[in-house]
Amino acid sequence: MIGQEIIDRFVALLGPKGVVTEPDDIAPWLTDWRGRFHGASPAILQPDSTEKVAAAVTLAGQLGIPLVPQGGNTSMVGGATPPPDGSALILSLRRMNRIHALSPDDNLAICEAGVILATLHDAAEKAGRRFPLSLGAKGSATIGGLISTNAGGTQVLRHGTMRALVEGIEAVLPDGSIFQGLDALKKDNRGYDIKQLLIGAEGTLGIITAASLRLVPAISARAVGWVGVRTPADALALLRLAEARLGDSVEAFEIIADDGLGHVLSHIPGTRCPIETRTPWHVLIEVDHADLSDPGPAERLEDALAQAMDKNLAVDAAIAANDAQASAFWRIRESLSESERAQGPALQFDISVPVARMPTFMIDAAAAAERAFPGTTASSFGHLGDGNVHFHVRAPKGTLDGPNWIATDGQSINAFVHDAVVAVGGSISAEHGIGQMKRAELGRLASPARLHALRAIKAAFDPQGLMNPDKLIPRPEEG
Amino acid sequence: MIGQEIIDRFVALLGPKGVVTEPDDIAPWLTDWRGRFHGASPAILQPDSTEKVAAAVTLAGQLGIPLVPQGGNTSMVGGATPPPDGSALILSLRRMNRIHALSPDDNLAICEAGVILATLHDAAEKAGRRFPLSLGAKGSATIGGLISTNAGGTQVLRHGTMRALVEGIEAVLPDGSIFQGLDALKKDNRGYDIKQLLIGAEGTLGIITAASLRLVPAISARAVGWVGVRTPADALALLRLAEARLGDSVEAFEIIADDGLGHVLSHIPGTRCPIETRTPWHVLIEVDHADLSDPGPAERLEDALAQAMDKNLAVDAAIAANDAQASAFWRIRESLSESERAQGPALQFDISVPVARMPTFMIDAAAAAERAFPGTTASSFGHLGDGNVHFHVRAPKGTLDGPNWIATDGQSINAFVHDAVVAVGGSISAEHGIGQMKRAELGRLASPARLHALRAIKAAFDPQGLMNPDKLIPRPEEG
Repeated sequence: MIGQEIIDRFVALLGPKGVVTEPDDIAPWLTDWRGRFHGASPAILQPDSTEKVAAAVTLAGQLGIPLVPQGGNTSMVGGATPPPDGSALILSLRRMNRIHALSPDDNLAICEAGVILATLHDAAEKAGRRFPLSLGAKGSATIGGLISTNAGGTQVLRHGTMRALVEGIEAVLPDGSIFQGLDALKKDNRGYDIKQLLIGAEGTLGIITAASLRLVPAISARAVGWVGVRTPADALALLRLAEARLGDSVEAFEIIADDGLGHVLSHIPGTRCPIETRTPWHVLIEVDHADLSDPGPAERLEDALAQAMDKNLAVDAAIAANDAQASAFWRIRESLSESERAQGPALQFDISVPVARMPTFMIDAAAAAERAFPGTTASSFGHLGDGNVHFHVRAPKGTLDGPNWIATDGQSINAFVHDAVVAVGGSISAEHGIGQMKRAELGRLASPARLHALRAIKAAFDPQGLMNPDKLIPRPEEG
Repeated sequence: MIGQEIIDRFVALLGPKGVVTEPDDIAPWLTDWRGRFHGASPAILQPDSTEKVAAAVTLAGQLGIPLVPQGGNTSMVGGATPPPDGSALILSLRRMNRIHALSPDDNLAICEAGVILATLHDAAEKAGRRFPLSLGAKGSATIGGLISTNAGGTQVLRHGTMRALVEGIEAVLPDGSIFQGLDALKKDNRGYDIKQLLIGAEGTLGIITAASLRLVPAISARAVGWVGVRTPADALALLRLAEARLGDSVEAFEIIADDGLGHVLSHIPGTRCPIETRTPWHVLIEVDHADLSDPGPAERLEDALAQAMDKNLAVDAAIAANDAQASAFWRIRESLSESERAQGPALQFDISVPVARMPTFMIDAAAAAERAFPGTTASSFGHLGDGNVHFHVRAPKGTLDGPNWIATDGQSINAFVHDAVVAVGGSISAEHGIGQMKRAELGRLASPARLHALRAIKAAFDPQGLMNPDKLIPRPEEG
């Protein structure tokens, strides 16, 4: 489909280093992060400047060749995997990995799209600042991909998703023109916010080539607490109390079911329950201060938790006495998925609901799923303050062939959970995006007004449909 | 053009109270806030529900009749004034003025578009919360209009513009479909963010009918300081120091040139300079705390200002001893425009530049304007932390006929200032939007990529071009 003659034209444009055609070098980029989607492509384009990205997009437009932009290839929804028929070229941003500027005074970093998240973390730290977004794939995920998927992570409660951290964007639009929006303007009302449209667009409206990102002060002091509570509703009341007492310094607020904690204690060596009483639900809270003023975070957290005990919201509580203990508290939270895998096959959902409805949803949706699919066990944990539920449905005890269980029951469990989410006004994609994996479900569940708007914008920006084809926008037959 | 037969069809749809045709009742809504734009229209539609807005938009679409959405009619750029040929109907949201819900626990208010800002302020205050966006027109401006123009105001430094406060939106799209996005989701990655596209779209992509808005804790204690500084660069260094020492509690940071202060002291009775030394520049800073914890804002501000004196950033400083003194400090800032008007005719610009470039811009652009237009005096003041400069060019001394001066020199001064803004990567509209007034200048100055994107989005949403015609999008001959 894409012959050597075409490849040669891109080589002439981008130079020999700008085009990878060796199959072994291409192979790692044809499969998604979780190994569920497989594609094919005769070449990876890897331009090293915005101008070359623009030239490649222009040529692809002239030739009618689809492009699949790729950063660290860490999509959880097959968002960066090319189509299996080899009809598209991969456009990798990995050579555009310079940090152009990092100003601690202005709390700004200007990065090319291919800068890896961990690299930015390190650079910010060296400058006495912090880039407050982090996630498991930080050693591979790139700034361009994180913006294109409006990534979340563990610090969203205080600092927001990627959308809240992007001050400016440079992008190549599908017609090959360069959108210059890197200047970080706090106030700018010159019509529709193109930047906001490109954030979370999964590369379907153009290719982000650089961004201005907001930095925040480094953490000077932190306190991590573990609180046993009776119900998710009590946990939400505790969050509201913490927000009222501790304001913006609440950096994380995670809710964990006691059965999840049990799995961790059973499967992860060296873990122990941080409090003496085993309560039905647990909360992990972190309070961070940028300065060393008194009272410090531990003292303030202690004060807030004492009040929560007085109000009967907390049954038991512990504050980490040192960094090692704080890490031990966090290790429990971070081991939840791993320990659950040890329990057997499970379907995991990345969903969100309005925060006020999360306590009810956590209990009701789990019970409903267990009733609808006898033998399964459902549970939820997650970022309570963000309304972001990690909802898991585990296969019936004794299920040995996980893939077969998923092939048999997966689709109906999927539909059941998504229906429950939509019923409470939630989102079927909290932070991973739509990609290929949720495209059909978006088509099934989105309102006609939303679908029409998505398609109209896509057609307006990319009339040829060449930008990351078959991602995000439901196919005509899908809704 | 729009005959009685057509009016009758809207009456049949919306009921007699839903259509105003009495010319005296229409007249006040045909001229903009500043009295610079005049339009005509045979009727105002005023539906009282989202469904009726949808029905009116659908009918207008069938009949090919343009609609001009209107809230409080406080646009500063002619954004809500109908075309002068009477070819459009006004669609007023004023009857949709219910606050559906206000939850202090969730820090959320759900309002119809016609709710007046001051009404929301009062309702939030009664619930022990605050809606942290305010501006001069708060007694008339409505939530729908504030969202459609992404309004700013004096509290943007800490709380952001309207965009940062909108958690969800309901809107009627140009095809008459209802976009349901009121659920406040902290994390939602279901494709392009339609909400963000409607914010600041000035009614050209549809009609916002309701919104979920973020509330913040009420202020428990505040401190207001006045600081004399040598240069805008020192003022910016002082802001950075204050941010580092006082974090998110810095609610306002305004910079004022000494000549502006001089005008206030000359023209506004009962004002006096808050500090003993007259310095070339002045800073007004407000620090707010939501709780009553120690140390309070006055003590913390004092501490930060003492450090600024040590570092030689501040020449003199005073902290208001009580609320009356705090109000007196603010009165100087709020009287700047009024006292300047007493000096003679002036052109006022609503522009923004990257914060780091604001100190240089304030001095260089003023000097350049004075050189280019001999006899004029130029000065700037404004929200330093937002990069939002109020840039004023005053007519040469002795100019008696202000309108004639503006007619003669206005356009070239306009172009000169806007060119200077674009040269430093700024915006020709910081917070007022484009409307009719800046449409041609946007066409002249925006990049081809931006213009193409604006027009493509407009055409995709509103192919008939019926939504707020001739606003925001430059005419073909304009760029």
